[in-house]
Amino acid sequence: MPDIVVSRDELFRFARECFLRIGVPEEDAELIADHLVLANLRGIDSHGVIRIPYYLEGVERGYVRAKGEFKIVRESPIMALVDGGGGLGIPVAARAAKLVIQKAKAMGVSVVCARNLGHVGMLAYYTLKVAEAGMMGLAAANAPARVAPWGGSKPVFGTNPISFSIPAAGQPIAFDMATSRIADFKIRLALMRGDRLPEGVAVSSDGRPTTSPEEALQGSLLPFGEHKGYAISLMVETLSALLGGAPLSVNIVRHPSTQGGFFIMALDPSAFRDYGEYLADLERLISVIKSCPPARGFHEVLLPGEPEERMREKRLADGIPLEHSVWSMLVEVAERLGIELPRIRS
Amino acid sequence: MPDIVVSRDELFRFARECFLRIGVPEEDAELIADHLVLANLRGIDSHGVIRIPYYLEGVERGYVRAKGEFKIVRESPIMALVDGGGGLGIPVAARAAKLVIQKAKAMGVSVVCARNLGHVGMLAYYTLKVAEAGMMGLAAANAPARVAPWGGSKPVFGTNPISFSIPAAGQPIAFDMATSRIADFKIRLALMRGDRLPEGVAVSSDGRPTTSPEEALQGSLLPFGEHKGYAISLMVETLSALLGGAPLSVNIVRHPSTQGGFFIMALDPSAFRDYGEYLADLERLISVIKSCPPARGFHEVLLPGEPEERMREKRLADGIPLEHSVWSMLVEVAERLGIELPRIRS
Repeated sequence: MPDIVVSRDELFRFARECFLRIGVPEEDAELIADHLVLANLRGIDSHGVIRIPYYLEGVERGYVRAKGEFKIVRESPIMALVDGGGGLGIPVAARAAKLVIQKAKAMGVSVVCARNLGHVGMLAYYTLKVAEAGMMGLAAANAPARVAPWGGSKPVFGTNPISFSIPAAGQPIAFDMATSRIADFKIRLALMRGDRLPEGVAVSSDGRPTTSPEEALQGSLLPFGEHKGYAISLMVETLSALLGGAPLSVNIVRHPSTQGGFFIMALDPSAFRDYGEYLADLERLISVIKSCPPARGFHEVLLPGEPEERMREKRLADGIPLEHSVWSMLVEVAERLGIELPRIRS
Repeated sequence: MPDIVVSRDELFRFARECFLRIGVPEEDAELIADHLVLANLRGIDSHGVIRIPYYLEGVERGYVRAKGEFKIVRESPIMALVDGGGGLGIPVAARAAKLVIQKAKAMGVSVVCARNLGHVGMLAYYTLKVAEAGMMGLAAANAPARVAPWGGSKPVFGTNPISFSIPAAGQPIAFDMATSRIADFKIRLALMRGDRLPEGVAVSSDGRPTTSPEEALQGSLLPFGEHKGYAISLMVETLSALLGGAPLSVNIVRHPSTQGGFFIMALDPSAFRDYGEYLADLERLISVIKSCPPARGFHEVLLPGEPEERMREKRLADGIPLEHSVWSMLVEVAERLGIELPRIRS
């Protein structure tokens, strides 16, 4: 059965209405809708509109608030600690990103930490905003514990994503990755489909390497890149939880609407050097990477984030395909809230 | 044949005299000696006194200067771009670290980039200084090209190390790692010993996976953690070369005395929150990690940097063992420069 295909604008309209309907302020509903639809455009469907029913459920169950009071707890010209008032995470993180951009534009460097907020979604959403403002962006967030430290057999870290962006003459470069070897939702997918997992991605609750999705769900995911990825997970935990006083991953309620803390930094190259020279050096680096002859088994060398950028262009033109299982979730939400479904592309 | 064992102080005395003898200013010679000896203490012997003959050679051949003029090119209360005047890298990077500490202590956040400097050695040397000053440190450096981008078959990145440190009530936590899967010197070691390489660490110059050290030397190393480690390598390249205008890895002269650019950042937790509460949360995180039951094949879960810290304590007490091949290099240097060798422990 082919996927349902909808346009970016129709999906945005639908997502926006869902959040308006449960009392989310208009600006916040638009930020969330813009974010989820961008995730689908970039092919990161796990962070797209599939989150709508979960975010709604998070509000119903009281894990997050439809409207949280955004408060600046501490502030200087170059830093801020913000409290999201327990609200849905995307609008809080988007405001934190706006703040870091303003401060770094004025001062060259800035760091903002946010605590007490829900799931912030796809970190590239925020680092891309920083790069579109002509600066490098670094973002990190911790999440409910699912990943064992290297050599361990119990979850200590969340999938603790990290994202970095590089402003360019054309489209910015941005990567955004979990520090687990594979994403948690891929385990759930394997379980649904009856597939085995690849080797080296999970351990059972008694510490044995496992390829069983059931055992992996009761056990732990493993960090990417063995002990080195473990170190990066710890860096993410430190920046996003310890620096701003957000909960440790082991203390976060586990639900797709929750998160720990959020860290974002912006660095303006023009504070350090001539921006035109920076761009020229970046173009040289891009050209060295793109002209690198591929290794056996590869067709070309891609920049980090390039597959997502290509997908965005394709889906903007051709529409966003939604799996039937996701579409059914949207149908259920539409009926419950009395919202018109996104028009299906013929 | 057992290793030669020397004390920390004797090795420091010897290293200091070597650099004084070739015209390195006293303060710089002490910084370099302190750095190399700390690397040996921590068990990072590839960045210890084995570097002495290479740094001397770098000066003789004109890759680096015994005395470079340290110049601040741009500066604000929170950032600086420094030029090392082509000098030996360690004193330049140590001064950049001192600057970042002063600025972050005053302002909460600071970034310093350095360009035009030699090999900066072990990044943990600098991030540990930041952590000893009560702040989180992030350092990165690019290096002569040896690592292919993911999917590629020619060197584009250096082994591009990254280091992060976390201030604690006791010893700080610090990790310091190459973003290649294994270090370049391990390839040379395998070649000398006639060993094969592990799988997945290198490709030949025509893009085939290889376990031959000869082919790996002519080919490329691979990033750690596949495409995710590649993204981290690119982040290191961006922060250390593009931000401050240092050479790209592909443009750095290849010698053990050379480097690209150096990036260091300091973040003061007390600018964001109560420092005592920060320390209490960190202790909780450490205790969660250390009490994690080990996975099969492991005896205990270690913190990043914990093996190096244990080694430091052991070698401070028992002395620093030097392989005979390294000792012979020191004998040659001692004779050539007329310096008394480190006294051997009985």
